[in-house]
Amino acid sequence: MERNTRGHRLISSTTNPLIKRARSLRDKKYRRQEGAFLAEGLRILAEARDAGYLPQQIFYADGQPLHPLAEDVIAAAAARGGEIIATSRDVLAKLSGKDNPQALVGIFAEHALPISALTAADAPLWLVAQAMRDPGNLGTLLRSGDAVAAGGVILIDDCVDPFSVECVRASMGAIFTQKIAVCRWAEFTQWRARQHAQLVAMTLSDDSVDYRAAAFTTPVLLMVGNEAQGLPDAYADAADIRVKLPMLGRADSLNAAVSVSILAYHVRDRLDAASFNRA
Amino acid sequence: MERNTRGHRLISSTTNPLIKRARSLRDKKYRRQEGAFLAEGLRILAEARDAGYLPQQIFYADGQPLHPLAEDVIAAAAARGGEIIATSRDVLAKLSGKDNPQALVGIFAEHALPISALTAADAPLWLVAQAMRDPGNLGTLLRSGDAVAAGGVILIDDCVDPFSVECVRASMGAIFTQKIAVCRWAEFTQWRARQHAQLVAMTLSDDSVDYRAAAFTTPVLLMVGNEAQGLPDAYADAADIRVKLPMLGRADSLNAAVSVSILAYHVRDRLDAASFNRA
Repeated sequence: MERNTRGHRLISSTTNPLIKRARSLRDKKYRRQEGAFLAEGLRILAEARDAGYLPQQIFYADGQPLHPLAEDVIAAAAARGGEIIATSRDVLAKLSGKDNPQALVGIFAEHALPISALTAADAPLWLVAQAMRDPGNLGTLLRSGDAVAAGGVILIDDCVDPFSVECVRASMGAIFTQKIAVCRWAEFTQWRARQHAQLVAMTLSDDSVDYRAAAFTTPVLLMVGNEAQGLPDAYADAADIRVKLPMLGRADSLNAAVSVSILAYHVRDRLDAASFNRA
Repeated sequence: MERNTRGHRLISSTTNPLIKRARSLRDKKYRRQEGAFLAEGLRILAEARDAGYLPQQIFYADGQPLHPLAEDVIAAAAARGGEIIATSRDVLAKLSGKDNPQALVGIFAEHALPISALTAADAPLWLVAQAMRDPGNLGTLLRSGDAVAAGGVILIDDCVDPFSVECVRASMGAIFTQKIAVCRWAEFTQWRARQHAQLVAMTLSDDSVDYRAAAFTTPVLLMVGNEAQGLPDAYADAADIRVKLPMLGRADSLNAAVSVSILAYHVRDRLDAASFNRA
């Protein structure tokens, strides 16, 4: 086995089985088989470490100085039994699908939870996405969840895979700071029946109220539907309250992830004000 | 010249000069040369028409029934001297860069304005983006501007081209409902000196205040910086007030377009409340 001057295994061929395996994780089928996913970039790998996640493998570009933070992340991964692999920028470009790849690529174990592992009372707010299809939207949703200190994101029905390269990238590290549960609607409703939580549906239906007129009580489960179809009526009807954002313009709706983010900040604000009044 | 049964010019070769010219508009250099851009899809073309914009050319797939709304849009474009071209799904796929293309593709004249053409008092709120680089973010910003009935979006310094295919697509038609001005910082400050408007900078700098503590007065110019760097200090310092959204989580910032959208809804809410109090 070839090693570089740091003593790390050195692989420069894109046909090496470890490289081919890593690259295969760009494909959902292989992610499911392996229970693992790719995350790229020093910032995201450092966020992962800070959140308690270390990669099973790290690939880095050999022959160029490493950022001190990259040294830290590599040392932390190695100390927990992670495999460190020095490689070329060409191989990194192959793994990341970008001509100008990040300096580090990590392989992590997927950390999706069953809904039964969540306790709504652990956080004031949770985001719930139903059949969200765009990886950039889901990444943005995770990022906004992190910004409002949501407990996590619950994915109902056929959502895009949160561990896709595009979603992980758009999440800017929030894939590691948010709990992620994946379930069907029936499982969600069973779980909800055992929680004391307020289910808030975002919907433009006739009986939904302006978000500023709604009263929120913790913990709030903030639910948004598919980008094109919105929530199914039965899902909106099952919620405790239905709210809408006023649309003052001519195009008919905000981006789904943006809508949830606007409402999430409003809910945090209302809840903060309520706890301030109580204190 | 070959014509189909509707009497429209029929082009089925991807090497036809009109097709090559249309496809060239996917490239910024040719958009600037021609002052024209591509917009795809019935929904967006209908939004354009409703906003008073009709395409110079429309390409549609020959040999399949057209949606009644598509018939309307085609008739409206033809009545204003637009050229209607029947073509194949293969050619449409070539134009849109997608295997599964939209049924209609239009070529429109670019409608960016000089900043001097805007009057801040015409709307309660304007969005200002500085060096925004991601076309999806800019499209989302346009869409949010439409949702809050902003007057338009002002692009300062080297922003991504608002007329790129990706931005137009992400705007979901708001590219046609929002006024768009493109300028340098010096032009913006000269323009601003002649308007009675409040410039609000979104920044995480030490002297920025929590957005909930800020007082807004119409018209508001809501300014956000580059996705990675944020606003330059000199730009933030030049603003009337500096505000931030609290970041409660571990990842260090929201998506730039999401941040503006959250603040834009909050500002609209505050302004609505103020005018309600006045009334």
